[in-house]
Amino acid sequence: MLLRHQHSIDTALRATLDRVASGSEVSALDAYYGQMRYHLGWVDSQLNPTNSNPGKLLRPTLLLLAYEAAGAWGLTDNTEASDTSYLQRALPAAVSVELTHNFTLIHDDIEDGDTERRHRPTMWTLWGVPQAINTGDGMFGLARFALWGVLENGVEGDIAARLGAVLDRTVLEIAEGQYLDISFERRGDISVSMYIDMIGRKTAALMRCSAEMGAMIGTRDTGTIERLGTFGQAIGVAFQVRDDLLGVWASAEELGKTRAGDVYRRKKSLPILHALEHANPRDLQTLQDIYQQEAEIKEEQVEQVLAIFERTRTRAYCQSFLQQHCDAAYEALNAVPHVSSTVSTRALGDMRAMVQFIEAAAH
Amino acid sequence: MLLRHQHSIDTALRATLDRVASGSEVSALDAYYGQMRYHLGWVDSQLNPTNSNPGKLLRPTLLLLAYEAAGAWGLTDNTEASDTSYLQRALPAAVSVELTHNFTLIHDDIEDGDTERRHRPTMWTLWGVPQAINTGDGMFGLARFALWGVLENGVEGDIAARLGAVLDRTVLEIAEGQYLDISFERRGDISVSMYIDMIGRKTAALMRCSAEMGAMIGTRDTGTIERLGTFGQAIGVAFQVRDDLLGVWASAEELGKTRAGDVYRRKKSLPILHALEHANPRDLQTLQDIYQQEAEIKEEQVEQVLAIFERTRTRAYCQSFLQQHCDAAYEALNAVPHVSSTVSTRALGDMRAMVQFIEAAAH
Repeated sequence: MLLRHQHSIDTALRATLDRVASGSEVSALDAYYGQMRYHLGWVDSQLNPTNSNPGKLLRPTLLLLAYEAAGAWGLTDNTEASDTSYLQRALPAAVSVELTHNFTLIHDDIEDGDTERRHRPTMWTLWGVPQAINTGDGMFGLARFALWGVLENGVEGDIAARLGAVLDRTVLEIAEGQYLDISFERRGDISVSMYIDMIGRKTAALMRCSAEMGAMIGTRDTGTIERLGTFGQAIGVAFQVRDDLLGVWASAEELGKTRAGDVYRRKKSLPILHALEHANPRDLQTLQDIYQQEAEIKEEQVEQVLAIFERTRTRAYCQSFLQQHCDAAYEALNAVPHVSSTVSTRALGDMRAMVQFIEAAAH
Repeated sequence: MLLRHQHSIDTALRATLDRVASGSEVSALDAYYGQMRYHLGWVDSQLNPTNSNPGKLLRPTLLLLAYEAAGAWGLTDNTEASDTSYLQRALPAAVSVELTHNFTLIHDDIEDGDTERRHRPTMWTLWGVPQAINTGDGMFGLARFALWGVLENGVEGDIAARLGAVLDRTVLEIAEGQYLDISFERRGDISVSMYIDMIGRKTAALMRCSAEMGAMIGTRDTGTIERLGTFGQAIGVAFQVRDDLLGVWASAEELGKTRAGDVYRRKKSLPILHALEHANPRDLQTLQDIYQQEAEIKEEQVEQVLAIFERTRTRAYCQSFLQQHCDAAYEALNAVPHVSSTVSTRALGDMRAMVQFIEAAAH
């Protein structure tokens, strides 16, 4: 379901990089844009072409689906199903949200000290922290610059300016979320509601922004834009909580995750925060001891934590939380004013399928 | 000359921060926006109000002067001289370029490992690298977000979108310049022309952008916009070369700089790059030995370097290079189509005074 737009997005992304990189006559900058291409999985660390995992392109796909659902543009009953030229109008924005997402990943990897992403060395481990900070900044600049391609593709100036404003507000929100996330690592008093607020900013905001921007390019109807934005926010939160659930209860087969991997890593995700709020005094002490000990966590301690999660009914809580957000997502989709076009209907169907995919983790 | 707009800019900057910081209901974020306020010199490291050096506000001042020179907006012959309400139209853009500049400083300090800026500890030394990277990103987001205030102040959507595009292209250019600057540190083969290209991006681009944005808000006449942009680029380069000159030949009284400070620091600025290209073989060897030695540079070695600069006529070269750019700046100002208003005439006069100030270093 998510594959339909991947080729268009990938082509537009590469064209965006090619345009700025070749626009520069300074050959010394080849290596600079090479770092961006490396991060995007197109070249290896020697800057030779390769095909590594390009990521899910989830945000730009969501943007294009929202654009289609909202009515797309320039489509007639006679448009051939194979004719995707109507996507041009929205593609610069799709490129923009994907580059925005990737700029945050480059900086997150430095901030978290992560040495690997998608099974490859992170940018800072190859080129050092100074260059990686700066190349991240450049990708942020490029993300913003790419957006203005919408002006060449028929989007009116006032809408383009509002797209910029939505994206910028979102980046500010993502940085707020990352501030909270970093500061939570040092604190022992994080509540469930603080965590939900944090993931709303750090993770869900860009999903909401993507859906909202796509809708804004497809229609001027504020009701449609708002509902698709609500949809994006809801699946953004749901997506993160699904990750949190799988981080504790996924079997090894599912998504290649280790069973209870997040417990081994003592990650402060939803399950542990819920358990800390609902454990009896004795279990609470056990959890605190295990999560604060200097030594690495042992397998028997992981079993202890999982047993406490049973007593606090943490898994059921997370599943029901996930289900609520999936329900909110369905509700938002159902409330999108009907546009009579096969493209819109198909896009709404694809978005429902996205929710179903996420929802599966609730069962 | 540069003081006239400082109060308006300072007020608008503080209002921008206040709006986003108070818009957030999460009190945990107070410390986050506190880091931004610290960097801007408004609070101390405990986040208590203070009045430290706020910086020169050069770029926003340039933006407002270009706006005035290009004809400002809504001014009539009856406008009182004390009525500065016409500035509102351009102030969000002025805030935007100042925050953009400051975001680059926050990241530069990390990348260069600098522990002090304006006689205070840099952000990363107080809050750590991860938070400082992220707060820099947030300030970048805020810089972009602030720009959209122009839409509320009467600027048309299509112009606002083009302002965004100019700013984004510029950020990309600044990051390119910083990439080159960082990579130059490790290389021994930097030519004068590579250096000029680098400062054009790293330093001059945002000055050109500021002048161009101001002009775009004041007029739709492309000739005026282009000429004011050229002015900004020219004084941007001149400003950096002035710094390079003072870094070597300033007396202790001038600007509080140490005599030959840049030689002590072995900074790869214009003088040394010029000397390396024009020294005789023996002097070249001496320069290379001194600039590559592990040990700290001694006073007598500094004298040796200065003597070589004499023989290569490096100071005269830098002065003439500076003068050329000042001449280009005057020429651009003279070519700005005449707008018959006292505000425009005054602004052009202020800009000429800026050039004279920079030019003084050429004599």
